[in-house]
Amino acid sequence: MASGGPEIEQLIQLLARLPGLGPRSARRAVLHLVKKKDQLMIPLSAALDRAVVAVRTCEVCGNIDTMSPCSICADPRRDSGMLIVVEDVADLWALERAGVGPVKYHVLGGVLSPLDGVGPDDISVDSLLARAPQFKEVVLAVNATVEGQTTAHYITDRLVGSGAKVTRLAHGVPVGGELDYLDEGTLSQALRARTEI
Amino acid sequence: MASGGPEIEQLIQLLARLPGLGPRSARRAVLHLVKKKDQLMIPLSAALDRAVVAVRTCEVCGNIDTMSPCSICADPRRDSGMLIVVEDVADLWALERAGVGPVKYHVLGGVLSPLDGVGPDDISVDSLLARAPQFKEVVLAVNATVEGQTTAHYITDRLVGSGAKVTRLAHGVPVGGELDYLDEGTLSQALRARTEI
Repeated sequence: MASGGPEIEQLIQLLARLPGLGPRSARRAVLHLVKKKDQLMIPLSAALDRAVVAVRTCEVCGNIDTMSPCSICADPRRDSGMLIVVEDVADLWALERAGVGPVKYHVLGGVLSPLDGVGPDDISVDSLLARAPQFKEVVLAVNATVEGQTTAHYITDRLVGSGAKVTRLAHGVPVGGELDYLDEGTLSQALRARTEI
Repeated sequence: MASGGPEIEQLIQLLARLPGLGPRSARRAVLHLVKKKDQLMIPLSAALDRAVVAVRTCEVCGNIDTMSPCSICADPRRDSGMLIVVEDVADLWALERAGVGPVKYHVLGGVLSPLDGVGPDDISVDSLLARAPQFKEVVLAVNATVEGQTTAHYITDRLVGSGAKVTRLAHGVPVGGELDYLDEGTLSQALRARTEI
């Protein structure tokens, strides 16, 4: 039985579809929203309304912003000549939070995965090839998974002749990481890529 | 730096204030919303708008519904004469999901907690005392915490002379629970309240 009426029930069902929330936490979230109606529920409702209208995907890089080209693509100070290729907008945001400098980005929107039926036409490779000649360096910042590395190899092959240097992120011990908890692959890569102090 | 513009940033900050979500999962949730704009973001925005307008607290029992008295209080088939007293609306919903029958509820909105400055005037005790004479039995379904039990004792004292029988939920082994993982208090209560097979 639906407690609280259809409006509440529908809100719970929609919130439960967000990543990280299930039916139970969605119910808790809705109760919290109703209790904090003025401080949280009404502002959230208004913010969602505004975002629905304003948010769009950048036609150049695939970032999410309120304008297209997005504020990163349109920024003339991002002139380092470095293009960072990421799988997902979340990775772009993570790099921006890390403050990696005046770079630009290209969001692939996925990685090659033949088992899941994701081929080169399903991710933004062609637009990357078109953009690459404008940059001095293309950094492949894809995840260190099998699919990510396959995608990196594929893109590297396609970028031959574009004039841009192709690089990838370093593998190694995460800052603050404990050796004991790291897998053998990371450790052997970190040892091979050791640097002089 | 805010990636994605102020609309996105504000949405993330508001979602991060929901229980069970932090800044990281709120970012993931917003990205998911933007990706599923038509299937999820727009329906959620509309559902929130509707809920903001429709949802209210029942003036009789404290339940959350779109009408007051709520659909439970207004239901003439809930005539078992049993009034279940709960701390919170979430507990009411949990009992409704369990299908406990044609009962009515009373939401206290908290428990007595002198350390947190919560006294009898801060929870709905007076309205409970006013309602109790209409019922044959008042079940105190407060949580099995120290504060919950203190509140149950207090309410029991106040209900003397109301004419309603006052009961509490049984303590014991949860269905599907393993004895090995239960605390001593529960086990000794379960042994004392053992029933013949």
